[in-house]
Amino acid sequence: MSKTFQPDWSEKAPKKNSYRSIFKWGSPKEFKHPSHEWYEMLKETFDMTDEDFKKPQFEGNEKVAIDHKISLTKTQIQAFTDIVGEKNIATDDYSRVRFSHGKTVDEAMDLRQNMVRNVPDIVVHPRNKSDVQKIVEYCNDKKIPIYIFAGGSSVTLGLKTPKAGIMLVMSTHMNKLLDINEINQTATVQPGMFGPAYEDALNNAPKKFNVKQRYTCGHFPQSFEFSTVGGWVVTLGSGQASTYYGDAYDIVFAQEYVTPAGSFKTLEYPATATGPKSNDIMKGSEGSFGILVEVTMKIFRYMPRNRQRFSFMFPSWEAAVKSSREITQAEFGLPAVFRISDPEESEVGLKLFGIHGSPVDKVMTFRGYKPMKRCLCMGWSEGEKGFSIHVKDQVTKICRQNGAMSLSGYATRKWEKTRYKEPYMREDLMDYGIIIDTVESGVTWENLHRLHEGVRAFIKSHPGVICMTHASHFYPQGTNLYFIFILKMTDLPEYRKFHDGVLDAILKNGGSISHHHGVGKMFAPLMERHLGKEQMDILRSLKKHFDPNNIMNPGGHLGLDQ
Amino acid sequence: MSKTFQPDWSEKAPKKNSYRSIFKWGSPKEFKHPSHEWYEMLKETFDMTDEDFKKPQFEGNEKVAIDHKISLTKTQIQAFTDIVGEKNIATDDYSRVRFSHGKTVDEAMDLRQNMVRNVPDIVVHPRNKSDVQKIVEYCNDKKIPIYIFAGGSSVTLGLKTPKAGIMLVMSTHMNKLLDINEINQTATVQPGMFGPAYEDALNNAPKKFNVKQRYTCGHFPQSFEFSTVGGWVVTLGSGQASTYYGDAYDIVFAQEYVTPAGSFKTLEYPATATGPKSNDIMKGSEGSFGILVEVTMKIFRYMPRNRQRFSFMFPSWEAAVKSSREITQAEFGLPAVFRISDPEESEVGLKLFGIHGSPVDKVMTFRGYKPMKRCLCMGWSEGEKGFSIHVKDQVTKICRQNGAMSLSGYATRKWEKTRYKEPYMREDLMDYGIIIDTVESGVTWENLHRLHEGVRAFIKSHPGVICMTHASHFYPQGTNLYFIFILKMTDLPEYRKFHDGVLDAILKNGGSISHHHGVGKMFAPLMERHLGKEQMDILRSLKKHFDPNNIMNPGGHLGLDQ
Repeated sequence: MSKTFQPDWSEKAPKKNSYRSIFKWGSPKEFKHPSHEWYEMLKETFDMTDEDFKKPQFEGNEKVAIDHKISLTKTQIQAFTDIVGEKNIATDDYSRVRFSHGKTVDEAMDLRQNMVRNVPDIVVHPRNKSDVQKIVEYCNDKKIPIYIFAGGSSVTLGLKTPKAGIMLVMSTHMNKLLDINEINQTATVQPGMFGPAYEDALNNAPKKFNVKQRYTCGHFPQSFEFSTVGGWVVTLGSGQASTYYGDAYDIVFAQEYVTPAGSFKTLEYPATATGPKSNDIMKGSEGSFGILVEVTMKIFRYMPRNRQRFSFMFPSWEAAVKSSREITQAEFGLPAVFRISDPEESEVGLKLFGIHGSPVDKVMTFRGYKPMKRCLCMGWSEGEKGFSIHVKDQVTKICRQNGAMSLSGYATRKWEKTRYKEPYMREDLMDYGIIIDTVESGVTWENLHRLHEGVRAFIKSHPGVICMTHASHFYPQGTNLYFIFILKMTDLPEYRKFHDGVLDAILKNGGSISHHHGVGKMFAPLMERHLGKEQMDILRSLKKHFDPNNIMNPGGHLGLDQ
Repeated sequence: MSKTFQPDWSEKAPKKNSYRSIFKWGSPKEFKHPSHEWYEMLKETFDMTDEDFKKPQFEGNEKVAIDHKISLTKTQIQAFTDIVGEKNIATDDYSRVRFSHGKTVDEAMDLRQNMVRNVPDIVVHPRNKSDVQKIVEYCNDKKIPIYIFAGGSSVTLGLKTPKAGIMLVMSTHMNKLLDINEINQTATVQPGMFGPAYEDALNNAPKKFNVKQRYTCGHFPQSFEFSTVGGWVVTLGSGQASTYYGDAYDIVFAQEYVTPAGSFKTLEYPATATGPKSNDIMKGSEGSFGILVEVTMKIFRYMPRNRQRFSFMFPSWEAAVKSSREITQAEFGLPAVFRISDPEESEVGLKLFGIHGSPVDKVMTFRGYKPMKRCLCMGWSEGEKGFSIHVKDQVTKICRQNGAMSLSGYATRKWEKTRYKEPYMREDLMDYGIIIDTVESGVTWENLHRLHEGVRAFIKSHPGVICMTHASHFYPQGTNLYFIFILKMTDLPEYRKFHDGVLDAILKNGGSISHHHGVGKMFAPLMERHLGKEQMDILRSLKKHFDPNNIMNPGGHLGLDQ
């Protein structure tokens, strides 16, 4: 086999109505393939040869076909049709599968083998709040389960429909920016608006909304292009710049919900001391209490010209962590993007960026930044110009004090350009039986090293596995750890067992079971162990209040039922 | 009457066991009297003469004596005695009155006339969590109401005991700083610890807790000296530096509660996406769900040397508001203390600080800063040195752009020294039949002017009234308005009617009924009008979950019952 052999990575848009068109990440025509260095790493790690990369397996190119029968009656379907109109109802196989699957690895494994476990009876595309209200009222009366789809980027089995019923697709019609309040610096948005459309409208607000300033939403998750504002809010998402702008949790100003117990909009106050806040109680409820139909978000001035990029190489993980903690606690303001990679991720990153083995690599090694010890750090500051410059200067000072060498803005710019593209590699790998998946966990500074070591130890105990870790969201009290693991596996029960082991290691070592991916139906079984019975009982009491007939996202979501 | 007549303002510590010793603000031996200019203003406003200030009325110097009978049985009292020990139980008249009254004007009016409406049967001083647990269990079993006292600084009838039962005093024993976690930058505190003890322990942490840095709590309400950490949390307080450090709401890291439905401690994570958070649900619950027995707070580096003071005079309220909004939205970081006073408060302030009529006043007037137009602004920045300097520079720039003239740090230093002392004037005024009271309201930038004008219009419609307004807590989305009004009135029902009118004006003009004073039993009747039935029902469902027998702070708290 020639040394220059490269697998014939797929560059074909998935076939219309195929399983692949459902599980493939992102845009049908976008791809990102492993670099040559990555390809070599995969072969070495999994003891594979070029031969193993000749024929892709279980590509899921087949046309979706299911035999799940529809249990709703004709009268019931007619009732929904009467509410939203005929063209906003779908009962075809493809729609039922497409709108009940997200991007969880489990789902991709299933769909590649044409396996469909659950589907809703029908798919409904509500046009407005009033449609949603009528639907919830009707379903509550008839005890018909309601599930909710917006961006479809869930990696926590968030869209699973174990009890069938109806799937509401919020992104078909309810996807507009309704208003920018320039005085309050807020934007009122429909929940199904996707990230790019939202950000574009804010960036161009003077043209589109007749306001004076340009704005940014401040929320840029890796799923940015394929997730919605409503999804960010109900799953408590974070974005790559959340260290500065705040998590979705922090930037929600007010929310409007339709629930079986009634509809309401939380009040618009910058702060108020009138008891526990409905705005808090609803955030993160993931469709289990009701349906978010409108949300008012804090927005921020758009000042990209003030962005100050930096990147560093640290001699060790300990030095990178120590600097990060000092940066968050020193009170000079926070950088917008800040990321530190552990030694294994740093090596893989150098391969991904083509730096591995280059002259730069040699200089680094010579200066004592040794492979599998050294750690990459990158980021940028934003905000008002003087503030942004001062933050970068202080970050630089602290990193240098802890032995880091500056790599200029190069790595950062490279990452910035491709930051939404990494998930596309998943399909290439799975075509050859290799899983790439992630878990992430909120953690205090105190527990960080224990969590990192404990989870890595479990993952690395599997023979043949790549495990990369970074921290990407920073707070004075701690951070998150984001674990990416790559392993060769094609059997779902076997993979589930491995994944359960990872989650067990997280809980044993002081991490939260989710920092920004939400709970869905994947982490749900761990919720009671994680929160304790008393705190689960609080959530259950809220569930009972909002949804006494258990029609909202039933069947295990948030751990509220089985 | 001589021009130099001054009333003989009381400088006597209240008599032991007197009503006055209960309603008097703060330390028994501290006083602050109206300045000569203020005295003249009071006479003019209320059409009073020196003669009216010769003999104080209803001073409440009488010894507390009540005839409220104790409805608990001897067996029940013995049960409590068995739990906490004899010396931690009180059944005497004085204790029953003292520990069930706060600093609400209504209470002072009552107590001055020896009127006591409600008292608990007995007062209990729990020693620790275990005591509290046993007490809650017993009370839940026997359906005995539990009320909670810590600092006693409530101005919302927060300590009223309409159903008798027991009063738990949290500040007698449960008042220690238990731990400083320097890695996480958090402190674990018992709820009954007072502000000064807490701040002192943090400032001197290296000596007392063997840590490297000195810390500050960042929370300085006007009641700082006489309120507790637990009180700040359960009533959602704010402090004078909260614009930078965040409100109590923002700086609570984790809480431990004892409730009739069980005990639990919320998890310690800087962020987590595991559904709605118990930590949020409990904040602001004001003892209606359970009892806060321990709290972990975020703390901050103590860097007083970096404080950068400023003060300005604006030509108008509009210019002061416009600058404030720009400062909060411009993204260079926020000042710690920032206050703007409306024209009436600015005039009264100049009198209070002795600037009125001085050469400085003449210069200001000459330069166009005209009385009853001009507005005072003062504050300071904190944090890392470069950050703090940059914030002050930017604040200065924006204020100047909006026509302000700098007054240097003079007024700020003056205010800084006396900032906890103003409430002491209340007793002097009430001794001569004059009420000074406050209400405050959270409000968006958009509604600020409407709220200011609407509430002022109502207050000023009363013949003879001083109404001062300032904004003292700033957010990118809005601020609070703090209304101080002074009027001559001695009849409580008449005053209640006036006060209800003020609250009505707040709600009609887009304000929240409380920005940082909490709800208590005073605002409770307005909660449903304010939040709407659906959102009150959420609170009621939580109440039912935590406290099915309605023993926790029953009788109208938070509007949860009558």
